[in-house]
Amino acid sequence: MTHTLLSPLDMHLHLRDEAMLKCVAPLSAQSFSAALVMPNLVPPITTIEALLDYKKRITEAIGNETFEPLMTLFFRSDYTRDFLEKAALHVKALKLYPSGITTNSEGGVATMDIEILRPVLEAMSDLGLILCVHGETNGFVMDREKEFCTIYESLASAFPHLKIVMEHITTKESVALLDKYENLYATITLHHLLITLDDVAGGMLKPHLFCKPIAKGYEDREALLHVSLHAHPKVMFGSDSAPHPIDKKECCGCAAGVFTSPIALQALVELFHKHHALANFQAFVSNNAQVIYAYKPPLKEVVLVKIPYVVPHSYGNVVPMFANETLAWSIERVI
Amino acid sequence: MTHTLLSPLDMHLHLRDEAMLKCVAPLSAQSFSAALVMPNLVPPITTIEALLDYKKRITEAIGNETFEPLMTLFFRSDYTRDFLEKAALHVKALKLYPSGITTNSEGGVATMDIEILRPVLEAMSDLGLILCVHGETNGFVMDREKEFCTIYESLASAFPHLKIVMEHITTKESVALLDKYENLYATITLHHLLITLDDVAGGMLKPHLFCKPIAKGYEDREALLHVSLHAHPKVMFGSDSAPHPIDKKECCGCAAGVFTSPIALQALVELFHKHHALANFQAFVSNNAQVIYAYKPPLKEVVLVKIPYVVPHSYGNVVPMFANETLAWSIERVI
Repeated sequence: MTHTLLSPLDMHLHLRDEAMLKCVAPLSAQSFSAALVMPNLVPPITTIEALLDYKKRITEAIGNETFEPLMTLFFRSDYTRDFLEKAALHVKALKLYPSGITTNSEGGVATMDIEILRPVLEAMSDLGLILCVHGETNGFVMDREKEFCTIYESLASAFPHLKIVMEHITTKESVALLDKYENLYATITLHHLLITLDDVAGGMLKPHLFCKPIAKGYEDREALLHVSLHAHPKVMFGSDSAPHPIDKKECCGCAAGVFTSPIALQALVELFHKHHALANFQAFVSNNAQVIYAYKPPLKEVVLVKIPYVVPHSYGNVVPMFANETLAWSIERVI
Repeated sequence: MTHTLLSPLDMHLHLRDEAMLKCVAPLSAQSFSAALVMPNLVPPITTIEALLDYKKRITEAIGNETFEPLMTLFFRSDYTRDFLEKAALHVKALKLYPSGITTNSEGGVATMDIEILRPVLEAMSDLGLILCVHGETNGFVMDREKEFCTIYESLASAFPHLKIVMEHITTKESVALLDKYENLYATITLHHLLITLDDVAGGMLKPHLFCKPIAKGYEDREALLHVSLHAHPKVMFGSDSAPHPIDKKECCGCAAGVFTSPIALQALVELFHKHHALANFQAFVSNNAQVIYAYKPPLKEVVLVKIPYVVPHSYGNVVPMFANETLAWSIERVI
């Protein structure tokens, strides 16, 4: 049994830099046609020069693969309209992080006060730039995203022509916002479709499943599954694949991030097949994003086949989700 | 500034066996007068012979310190009254684990059906044996203890003369049961008085703070603090100090347990001092347990002094809570 995907897209990807970039970029490029690349390097990508330099390093790391890195800028509330006009030639989206909320987000916004953010958000709205948001407060870890929903609502109301992507949503409350505000969209990861906090901390503690936002409960996962398997038109696949070297995961203070890019399509096709939703897989993993981002990706045909695939223990020094486990589907070929 | 404790008791302690026992038993014996020793070895302590052998190994590991290991039996629903009568000569309590709920609990009870447990619980009640319970269901990790509360209520109602200790409670719901049922008591750990899930998984993931039951939210911690700092007469200190070698903590599947015994009194006195509750410290850490267990411990005087104490990175191959951090209080001398 096979299933063919056309130009799969990963609309939320961390490629890191230097040796890690060289390790992980080819893995995404092997199976995806393009990906939205997060800008949270150290220091973050806040200038066009840094953006183009980073894009060049990504392109070099990828080699001959057909793969387009869709670049993003790290949101700053002090960008000028003039700067954003120039940036709009190179990016489709800016990524907003509340300061300190996740890996390398220290330079993010200190406040979500709409009046402080207004000049930049109005300019983005006028220029058709998309706002991607890591939506968590600094509250109790299980409540952070739920608490942020009121901020999503304020942003969506205040800037009705700004497309806002709620990144890597994990709660039923975020899912509910999709049908409440025309201009709210969402990415959903593989791991949040599969795991709950029980998988992270219910048996042994699993550092390789630890991420931000942290996996939530069963009702939340059900809500995410529902809109993904139905390919709700405002929902896109974004892996949030976030590699860390093994010594930053299996240690006394484990960094947040699940590394999924090399196994994402295999695990997703298994999930969609199991739920009799293969007819919606193409929309979830490509077509919806093409519409939302008004983007035509390079053509790539990925043929998935229902033949078991043993996931390696690691890629370089990064341990993937499902390390050493067997998935039901493999990638047969990529054309 | 000093504070003197008389015969501090740790009413929930894991001493393990073999090399680990030799490493950790002296650390408890240095500062505690006695401790209730958990029976979840591999295999669990289910015979009087195994119990006496284990007690002997503990005594040898302790050497010349004044320290009484209060032994417990691993609860089995098929114990006979005759066996329990003999056991009552050697133990004050049996520890009940739902099967598979935590470290080395595989031999625990498969059901909490009261009719199945009735013969043993009635015999225990008649013999004045105390029932210590790890009270978690196999539900969602954040709800397991709350869900178990209905089982505590059923047990307390069905066996009104049986003393039941809700071990290492972590929720406001368990705290509320203390005043609802005369025969329900509780132990509270150091770490559950100090941390919430935010400390375990809100920033970096911290394997050395991962335990079962997992730390909960702020309201839960407040409820635990309230009854501890007021030395509610039905509440006792039980560290649940649960050592694992570092390679079972900093790895891809971290075992549950926080190792606190060598730093517990120093951290507790700091907490009680900070909350102006030193007057209740003696009751929380010794007197309440003496009354509940009808037990007179060996006399030991522990003088704590407000001089900083740098916690070692490890004791043998076990990393303690507060490793490499500085506590405000030290143990000055033990007489």
